[in-house]
Amino acid sequence: MIRTIESKDNSFIKEVKKLKDRKQRKAAKQFLVEGIKSVEEVINSPYTLDSILYSEKMDGKIDSIIEGLNHSNVKIYKVKHEILKNLCSTENPQGILAVVNIKDFKVDTLKDGFYVLVDRVQDPGNIGTIIRSAHASGAKGIILTKGSVDIFNDKALRSTMGSAFHMPIIEDDGEILPYLKLKGYKFLVSSLQSDKDFFEVDLKGNLVICVGNEGNGVSDYIYDLGDIKVKIPMPGGAESLNVAVASSIMMFEIVRQKLI
Amino acid sequence: MIRTIESKDNSFIKEVKKLKDRKQRKAAKQFLVEGIKSVEEVINSPYTLDSILYSEKMDGKIDSIIEGLNHSNVKIYKVKHEILKNLCSTENPQGILAVVNIKDFKVDTLKDGFYVLVDRVQDPGNIGTIIRSAHASGAKGIILTKGSVDIFNDKALRSTMGSAFHMPIIEDDGEILPYLKLKGYKFLVSSLQSDKDFFEVDLKGNLVICVGNEGNGVSDYIYDLGDIKVKIPMPGGAESLNVAVASSIMMFEIVRQKLI
Repeated sequence: MIRTIESKDNSFIKEVKKLKDRKQRKAAKQFLVEGIKSVEEVINSPYTLDSILYSEKMDGKIDSIIEGLNHSNVKIYKVKHEILKNLCSTENPQGILAVVNIKDFKVDTLKDGFYVLVDRVQDPGNIGTIIRSAHASGAKGIILTKGSVDIFNDKALRSTMGSAFHMPIIEDDGEILPYLKLKGYKFLVSSLQSDKDFFEVDLKGNLVICVGNEGNGVSDYIYDLGDIKVKIPMPGGAESLNVAVASSIMMFEIVRQKLI
Repeated sequence: MIRTIESKDNSFIKEVKKLKDRKQRKAAKQFLVEGIKSVEEVINSPYTLDSILYSEKMDGKIDSIIEGLNHSNVKIYKVKHEILKNLCSTENPQGILAVVNIKDFKVDTLKDGFYVLVDRVQDPGNIGTIIRSAHASGAKGIILTKGSVDIFNDKALRSTMGSAFHMPIIEDDGEILPYLKLKGYKFLVSSLQSDKDFFEVDLKGNLVICVGNEGNGVSDYIYDLGDIKVKIPMPGGAESLNVAVASSIMMFEIVRQKLI
């Protein structure tokens, strides 16, 4: 059933608009996904949708999406284009928006392999790129410490190119890191202070790759959790690498070691 | 000698302002560098400076820079803060700007090792990050095809974190690629269409790593130049990697192979 909303003062529209704010997303345990390709991605992912909103201008252009959801619990709303535009972050929105439920991560779903711990990274493009690489390289999940940029903000989500929907995004609640330690995962910390060559390390076991803030690297807390502290060799003389690049080099060295 | 400029209508100021435009940079063979750290980087690089402009507000704060240039040919101008602000791209400029001469690349300065060919990459942050990684990994230079974003634009320069000043930036003039071929450099093209595993390739010889546009990859021309077409294995299922990430993984696999 498709419902129609014509007023921007509709109470549901007001609730959706709140999800543009990080705190409200956390409280409601929901986030927004914009655009046809991204909405299709999230529909075909393990995430569940609360609702779909689309612009009257999209009539006939998204039939396959709507039909696919017809017998689901997802609520479908057709709204005035101006209302939809007001809910979107892009300047010229395509005219479709999904309200998606944030998934809680359960520690008993931990898998063998490697996780990527992102400590207080600030740039949405960097975190999005890290998640895209994590998905490509077969990471089992991403762990975000408090103080990291919100992965469910629009720019970060866009930089993941859909990859955010295909792996667990785990917020550090104070328990996940000790639990990983207990389960024998080795913490590999990237640090400019180390002189241990990253390429000499065996990466085939259960691992947590830890990377930190653009300017300051990992916090003391994460540094102290490190079982192995490594530096990516930089023979050319630059002082450091972009954090998304450094973490991707580490993830794909795991890919390489597992292939050979 | 420090000259003083008080009018925004000063003819030199007008010439400097033109350098905010790509075409004018190309015509004048000069570009602008903003901020204390970046100006220091470029002074300590192989680039030559035409002039330094600084805000009257910086009096006493940049003495070491000014003194270092005292007996050089670099012209030094103290200008009103509003004039300097108008020449800068950042919203709250630190108050120092250098006019730097673009270096022509001469083919007889080619070095053994690897170059990175960037084909029509559009995002300034991506190209800046590629140059930063190229510097870190010891690349001998960057080659930019026509249609690539200008590396001398403010955002791209900032993303390089100073690395742009420490390696040749070579614009493809139609002659450099055939010359590299003639000299026996192997062209390694990253392509999603290939199924040759990148990690199986020996990367120790003279190489040109070729990466392409964010949406479309390399052009047919570059693809056809390729001696080896490879794909970085992505066991996790994402369709592709960010172009700065893909090129950095390739550069650091060269670092790894040369270390072992």
